[in-house]
Amino acid sequence: MSASPLFEKHKDTLEKAIAASRSREYWTAYPEMPSPKVYGEDANKNGEVAFKGYLNKAFDLDLPGASGTVGGEKSPYGFDLGVTYPKVDVDQLVSAVEAARKDWGRADVDTRAGICLEILDRVNKRSFEMAYAVMHTTGQGFMMAFQAGGPHAQDRGLEAIAYAYEDMKRTPAMAHWVKPQGKRDPLVMDKKFTIVPRGIGLVIGCSTFPTWNSYPGLFADLVTGNGVIVKPHPGAVLPLAITVKIAREVLKEEGFDPNVITLAVDDAAAPITKELALRPEVKLIDFTGSSAFGNWLEENAKQAQVYTEKAGVNCIVIDSTDNFRGMIGNIAFTLSLYSGQMCTTPQNIFIPEGGIETDEGHKSFDEVAEAIAKGVEKFNSDDERAAAVLGAIQSDATMQRLEKYAAGDNVLLAPRAVPMKGFDNARIRTPLILRATDDSSYTEELFGPISFVVSTKDTDDSLKTVEASVKNHGAISFGIYSTSDEVLAKAEEVACEAGVAVSFNLTGGVFVNQTAAFSDFHATGANPAANAALSDTAYVSNRYRVVQSRWHPKG
Amino acid sequence: MSASPLFEKHKDTLEKAIAASRSREYWTAYPEMPSPKVYGEDANKNGEVAFKGYLNKAFDLDLPGASGTVGGEKSPYGFDLGVTYPKVDVDQLVSAVEAARKDWGRADVDTRAGICLEILDRVNKRSFEMAYAVMHTTGQGFMMAFQAGGPHAQDRGLEAIAYAYEDMKRTPAMAHWVKPQGKRDPLVMDKKFTIVPRGIGLVIGCSTFPTWNSYPGLFADLVTGNGVIVKPHPGAVLPLAITVKIAREVLKEEGFDPNVITLAVDDAAAPITKELALRPEVKLIDFTGSSAFGNWLEENAKQAQVYTEKAGVNCIVIDSTDNFRGMIGNIAFTLSLYSGQMCTTPQNIFIPEGGIETDEGHKSFDEVAEAIAKGVEKFNSDDERAAAVLGAIQSDATMQRLEKYAAGDNVLLAPRAVPMKGFDNARIRTPLILRATDDSSYTEELFGPISFVVSTKDTDDSLKTVEASVKNHGAISFGIYSTSDEVLAKAEEVACEAGVAVSFNLTGGVFVNQTAAFSDFHATGANPAANAALSDTAYVSNRYRVVQSRWHPKG
Repeated sequence: MSASPLFEKHKDTLEKAIAASRSREYWTAYPEMPSPKVYGEDANKNGEVAFKGYLNKAFDLDLPGASGTVGGEKSPYGFDLGVTYPKVDVDQLVSAVEAARKDWGRADVDTRAGICLEILDRVNKRSFEMAYAVMHTTGQGFMMAFQAGGPHAQDRGLEAIAYAYEDMKRTPAMAHWVKPQGKRDPLVMDKKFTIVPRGIGLVIGCSTFPTWNSYPGLFADLVTGNGVIVKPHPGAVLPLAITVKIAREVLKEEGFDPNVITLAVDDAAAPITKELALRPEVKLIDFTGSSAFGNWLEENAKQAQVYTEKAGVNCIVIDSTDNFRGMIGNIAFTLSLYSGQMCTTPQNIFIPEGGIETDEGHKSFDEVAEAIAKGVEKFNSDDERAAAVLGAIQSDATMQRLEKYAAGDNVLLAPRAVPMKGFDNARIRTPLILRATDDSSYTEELFGPISFVVSTKDTDDSLKTVEASVKNHGAISFGIYSTSDEVLAKAEEVACEAGVAVSFNLTGGVFVNQTAAFSDFHATGANPAANAALSDTAYVSNRYRVVQSRWHPKG
Repeated sequence: MSASPLFEKHKDTLEKAIAASRSREYWTAYPEMPSPKVYGEDANKNGEVAFKGYLNKAFDLDLPGASGTVGGEKSPYGFDLGVTYPKVDVDQLVSAVEAARKDWGRADVDTRAGICLEILDRVNKRSFEMAYAVMHTTGQGFMMAFQAGGPHAQDRGLEAIAYAYEDMKRTPAMAHWVKPQGKRDPLVMDKKFTIVPRGIGLVIGCSTFPTWNSYPGLFADLVTGNGVIVKPHPGAVLPLAITVKIAREVLKEEGFDPNVITLAVDDAAAPITKELALRPEVKLIDFTGSSAFGNWLEENAKQAQVYTEKAGVNCIVIDSTDNFRGMIGNIAFTLSLYSGQMCTTPQNIFIPEGGIETDEGHKSFDEVAEAIAKGVEKFNSDDERAAAVLGAIQSDATMQRLEKYAAGDNVLLAPRAVPMKGFDNARIRTPLILRATDDSSYTEELFGPISFVVSTKDTDDSLKTVEASVKNHGAISFGIYSTSDEVLAKAEEVACEAGVAVSFNLTGGVFVNQTAAFSDFHATGANPAANAALSDTAYVSNRYRVVQSRWHPKG
């Protein structure tokens, strides 16, 4: 097709991304280490300066239908961001996007892919600035905010572009069709296939992973030619505002109306998500958040394709281990990381009531439960390290939930407030570990640093419970520890039957709550926790349609 | 993966099908000519004998939960088929499919593809038998029943298999993941990706194209590992009963429970489709039929992915032509073929009130309208040829509709009853052509041989009307005649905006109501006539999910 300079610039990255998504071997486009060697000597300093430059003023974004401002983000590290954003009129915003998207939808696929890749490249160069923005909206520790909010999110965006690009290119732009007719002249037709976008894509962000969970839908919509309205969570606007601003700059430079992508910020006092979601122009919705709202979208936004990631209850099954210490260490890190505020953090740990066999001999149920509690306690014993891994509690609701459950009489490990240098008001807590008392105590999602150890009759019982739990309540991750190949095979069967990814015997530097772009699918789309996976063909291929023209070529 | 002999046998066909769906050049796997050279000297005779062998007895199919019989098919050529089918208990049927599908879902993709291709191959070999079965349920003429009911339907089934196979194979079965860790040892994981089917696929057939419209969903479900319940229209059971029987034979031979695919026949007195559609085990539904029922499925069968092809109002716009005679001939055939009982038959023909320019000079609106009416009349003037092309009217409803509209005072060409040798009671009618009186007269789908010529201010007005019509009422086909590249470009814009395929200036042996597998998409999935296209990635990729297992390989 057309030779787009930005496409040429980033073509190699795109090709490697496609190859990686097919081999599913290790690959990444955006370096995850916040290293001066990669990002520049002054990158960290400049990023912090840029972040501080946003505080206590109006975010500079010229949006259609803007009048007045909105914004009330609070850093979980204990201060108000004081950033305000344009408050938009939904009618005017939708009209402007609707007008802007036409040219964008008509641009050829390579041009759009080149622009999307340039946006990601510029977002990547500003990963430190993004890290501070993510840290002080989500509460993630700095390293995690850098990685999950920066390069890992960018990789997930690129992954969605790769899937969409490959699928769009599967159909040729033109075909010459010659049908033999025996002795008569053949029937001859020229056929043209046009990629036609759906319309406007609404991307609804969450408060804990504003970029990571939004980039796949955002870039899948954009590369397939749709207009995009980003509706951030009121608690985590800044990372997406920066993203949208960069995207608009690139679009404008390339001669497109920047309103191809816009930002719609609201607050709890006057929410606009439902109004946006029901607009007839909105044909695609990507949502990460509560099951209640995700189900509402699926049931009510009938004019749109709706992709949801909702609540789930993730599980670990402990059957046996040849590395007890490694297992405990791995679980301790997993439960501590970002205070369990990941959609992949395990909540329920199933252990047979008769205990387990380990490389350190038989361990009773109580010994295993105690070892997990002690492991988490010890892992977080150093305040500085604890604060860096735990991050801060994002929402009041999570904080209140933690306090409520910590007041119970089934506490194995109570949460501890962790002080952090320079952030006196940071809301940092170590995980709460509870002993399950009855089934109903642990089967709903308790988002945040709350886990249960649950005693079962035996591992078969554990697996049965997990299967029912995943089918009924959803899950994105599932881990099992066992030295028996037979048990692992059974666990894999349960995983397939219930539709959840499974990790076996994680005792080192890979954690059940982490997935790697291009290799691990995030969610399966096969249980109530999510109706789609990041990313696969199903996630991208219905964001556009193909319209065909055909004619007999002239003489 | 495993070397499946059936996969090896048909691998070449599958590879060619994938290549054709990518190039979209002419290709077919199953010869469309009912030629003794291809299908054997006795194929026609044997086919007719086989068809007659079914009449007036119970169809031999051993189904789970069967007790009693059901069946009341009538040939539109004027006789009762007298075939009865097992009446199944829905609970028992669903349980049996649910049990049978497990092994099938665990079989590797190549094994399943090999079996699906063997089923198609055997169905193909019985294309004459199928032709008689299709002819005497749908009313299609013999040639069309052979082609559309046989090889073309088989091609569409193969096409769906090709898309699904390629998409499933995009993800490798295994991956070895090595993530560098600077100076430390790399993180190493082995990852396994398992294709996990959705569950049971319900394929709801229609009365006019029982095989053509069912095979894509049926084979897409099957090859992705789902169990299948085929629910034929009570008026066109036999073609699908034969198909299911062949499929069950192949499955059994290959060591699978034949209940992987079953048949659920009902009648108007005790319909079971809604009950089946709402079963929690049914995760996929393919439906062709009325908008009312399609919309009901989309709104109520929330546990399932629902793929629908519903009603539409197809349009032709006449702007100008350099081949008036060719145009009239093409339209005459198009309106006559199977008495307009195709979801792609044009209903409304828009002509500027001021007439059009042609190679035969200026023609007034009335002259063009008259030429179309005369063209259709002349085309059907020979009874034998007319009967062969028109076929018979499938349903009482279509017949009544035809009679009702023929009684109006805006008739341009009245329908004529056509006699057919050997079938004294055949219900054969030439098309009715009406002059549109007001907008409301032609905007709803009037299924069957009823068309309107509609006068517009000019071609711009015609195109605007078509755009609104497609957006509001849906369409699967759209044709335009114009000598102006500018007008054609505008028509293409309208097609893209409204989401409908467009054919330019068809004056020869290609007709707007015909699409060719591997080259033409059937429906776009972008307007109310259908929420999916046959076939593309979106049509197949959500019929299964991928479940991943991962572990650190042992030292």
